[in-house]
Amino acid sequence: MTTNIFLSEHEMPRAWYNLAADLPHAPLPPLAPDGSPVRPEQLAAIFPMGLIEQEVSSQRWIDIPEEVLALLYRWRPSPLQRAYGLERALGTPARIYFKNESVSPAGSHKPNTAVAQAYYNKLAGIKKLTTETGAGQWGSALAFACAQFGLECKVFMVRSSYEQKPYRKSMMRTWGATCIPSPSSTTRAGREVLARMPDTPGSLAIAISEAVEEAVGDPSGSTRYALGSVLNHVMLHQTIIGLEAKKQLELAGERGPDQVIACVGGGSNFAGLAFPFVKDKIEGAEIEIIPVEPSSCPSLTRGSFIYDLGDMSGMTPLLPMHSLGHEFVPASIHAGGLRYHGMAPLVSAAVEEGLLSPRALPQLECFEAAVAFARSEGIIVAPETSHAIAQVIREAKRAKEEGKEKVILFGLSGHGLLDLSGYESYFAGQLENIELSPEAIERSLACAAAYPKARDFALA
Amino acid sequence: MTTNIFLSEHEMPRAWYNLAADLPHAPLPPLAPDGSPVRPEQLAAIFPMGLIEQEVSSQRWIDIPEEVLALLYRWRPSPLQRAYGLERALGTPARIYFKNESVSPAGSHKPNTAVAQAYYNKLAGIKKLTTETGAGQWGSALAFACAQFGLECKVFMVRSSYEQKPYRKSMMRTWGATCIPSPSSTTRAGREVLARMPDTPGSLAIAISEAVEEAVGDPSGSTRYALGSVLNHVMLHQTIIGLEAKKQLELAGERGPDQVIACVGGGSNFAGLAFPFVKDKIEGAEIEIIPVEPSSCPSLTRGSFIYDLGDMSGMTPLLPMHSLGHEFVPASIHAGGLRYHGMAPLVSAAVEEGLLSPRALPQLECFEAAVAFARSEGIIVAPETSHAIAQVIREAKRAKEEGKEKVILFGLSGHGLLDLSGYESYFAGQLENIELSPEAIERSLACAAAYPKARDFALA
Repeated sequence: MTTNIFLSEHEMPRAWYNLAADLPHAPLPPLAPDGSPVRPEQLAAIFPMGLIEQEVSSQRWIDIPEEVLALLYRWRPSPLQRAYGLERALGTPARIYFKNESVSPAGSHKPNTAVAQAYYNKLAGIKKLTTETGAGQWGSALAFACAQFGLECKVFMVRSSYEQKPYRKSMMRTWGATCIPSPSSTTRAGREVLARMPDTPGSLAIAISEAVEEAVGDPSGSTRYALGSVLNHVMLHQTIIGLEAKKQLELAGERGPDQVIACVGGGSNFAGLAFPFVKDKIEGAEIEIIPVEPSSCPSLTRGSFIYDLGDMSGMTPLLPMHSLGHEFVPASIHAGGLRYHGMAPLVSAAVEEGLLSPRALPQLECFEAAVAFARSEGIIVAPETSHAIAQVIREAKRAKEEGKEKVILFGLSGHGLLDLSGYESYFAGQLENIELSPEAIERSLACAAAYPKARDFALA
Repeated sequence: MTTNIFLSEHEMPRAWYNLAADLPHAPLPPLAPDGSPVRPEQLAAIFPMGLIEQEVSSQRWIDIPEEVLALLYRWRPSPLQRAYGLERALGTPARIYFKNESVSPAGSHKPNTAVAQAYYNKLAGIKKLTTETGAGQWGSALAFACAQFGLECKVFMVRSSYEQKPYRKSMMRTWGATCIPSPSSTTRAGREVLARMPDTPGSLAIAISEAVEEAVGDPSGSTRYALGSVLNHVMLHQTIIGLEAKKQLELAGERGPDQVIACVGGGSNFAGLAFPFVKDKIEGAEIEIIPVEPSSCPSLTRGSFIYDLGDMSGMTPLLPMHSLGHEFVPASIHAGGLRYHGMAPLVSAAVEEGLLSPRALPQLECFEAAVAFARSEGIIVAPETSHAIAQVIREAKRAKEEGKEKVILFGLSGHGLLDLSGYESYFAGQLENIELSPEAIERSLACAAAYPKARDFALA
């Protein structure tokens, strides 16, 4: 009866897994504004070549550089833990395991890719990275990684999160980074948004525009932009989570999970845990794989599969993804990391292939689940993670009703110690469920309609 | 070149180590107000018998109950980590290891004893625990532990910390506990202090008085008090830290540490890491063992070894300890967990036996060390822990000057994610070094002079 399944360093995976190699249909390329596929060189002003190569790679396994491994060892392999306390509280016959990414220095899965991105930029002689952040998980992860490689770091933080989670900026500052609220008046993109919507809570799409503008606008050419989710190379770096979890489940004596559950915003936490199991599913394993999104920002369950912009002002190529439209500004829910209008192209493609079973859940059920988890297991999770836990509780209760033993694996993407104001608001009864209004959906569909349907390309 | 040394669950120690069994002179007993040794029965209104037996035990090894082990497994064995990043930043030939207790649900070493204390109280049929907390580490640990055993929990939090670290109370609330600032108007002890010193920042001594009063005043008799440090049974429960660290250092191929360094307030973090090595030192090993305290609250380096009260209003027995006097109200430094006028009797006894080499360090050097550690190693530590790191940096620089290889082991007692306002104040230049004024020392000595010198008893 083992609670924590640790791996030693020499058992840690030495290569990342690239789902693009195994999807039944080859993934769609990003498109330039004129509709032609983006050539790798066109991305060179934004990303270093090491990452661009990974972005377009169809190689199944990509070696993790030694320098990256050396930093990952600081908190990896991360523990896989059996949730005995939650199982007991629910009286479920299900065996529930979670992969605990909250043990990283920045408190979430984000450093897995931050370290890799800082490494490839350093290798290319870059001196400074810019980025956006929602709840602050990604911004602090990149600040941490930049400190390890001696890179400067500037973070545009979505205003609503900047105000809800003031200590995130202190964290970034402690690692030597600067963090300002977005939209800001320091970029053209930010000023344009402020002129149109002076009271906007901000969005990841806006913050991305600002961060990309600052990177490509550096006349010295030594600044690049880093994205914490959505892109293929980010999904790639996160697969170490699921690769470790597979080994650990084996050590726990399980033949594998029946269900894999993770919250999904841009897609990186979900992809990291799930893609190695998607591979098994493609090869015939019976696994239900569930990405869980907030019902107030339901790109997978209510969005359209289109070629859409990754940001608000058109600094990025068109990406083939499930999207609510790049003009969509999500409500200020506390799960700031899930407030993104689109979805990673690889996650979107896996949905189109019928490999995933997305769900959307309301905020209150998620906070209730988080409190139940804190009291039964002890860990106070991030509001993002609470979406996965709410779904786990639904599935564990169903297993009880059906009297079915099953193995549920979920991703504990991060702790909520910088999100305690959200818990306070929940206890004070100040939170509500936010569903999309019919008008919002109509606006979203109208925005989406102006962009090419990605499915047309997939069929072509 | 291993960074993280994990142990598996079956390698975790199954018994706690009791230093009382090995000290050259038997430890002095606590005294009742009339000067007679306290009989175990007299403590029964405050603690359950299982803990009282441990408090007075001279048995060397005490088995850890299975129910306690099952909960410790959630985060234990905790990692021992080699600080390659810090070593490189300092260019030192020293090999620096730290035992990382920040991975516990409450973020510090405190749950090690909270779980054990909640267990023995539950076993005795107790329904509710009261306690005090400084920075909030202990209060949240007990809240976590009580949630696991279905106990009610009420925490009196020192007012200055309550205001500096508002999210600590959210954490306790998430685990179902209540937390109020101390001194409060809900107890006689609190009201008396407020009448005398309406603007007091509070102190652990005051908060202890309040918590004990609330426990013994419950007419149903089903409430007890839990102390997070100072007492023998608390030191005992924390020794799992050092016992694990010894095994891990062996696995890392080290013959043992040359120096063991930990911050010290009431003594539990220090004792937990150090006592198993104090045993080795008693048996002849050459180890320098350094407790580090804040220069604004220097009980070990400036206090007197006396029989003093553990609290302000005399709810506790007289304890043989290094003390600044129970009337001493420490300055509002951010290391709230180190703001205690006295020192654990077992730690005090080890100092008297010449086994320890205490140091006192100023606040600014400690914050500077914490920032250097965050940037080189990635972990943002608690202000308490920063005292250990500042001393480690001194020792590592000395090793560099002397060209000496040596092995330094230090205790990373907790993370600082709920203490980021302290880092903000540091960056804003708002912090200063607070040394005791000659008047404060005189007042402290005068208070101490009214109490019996413990050394007289030791010689008797």
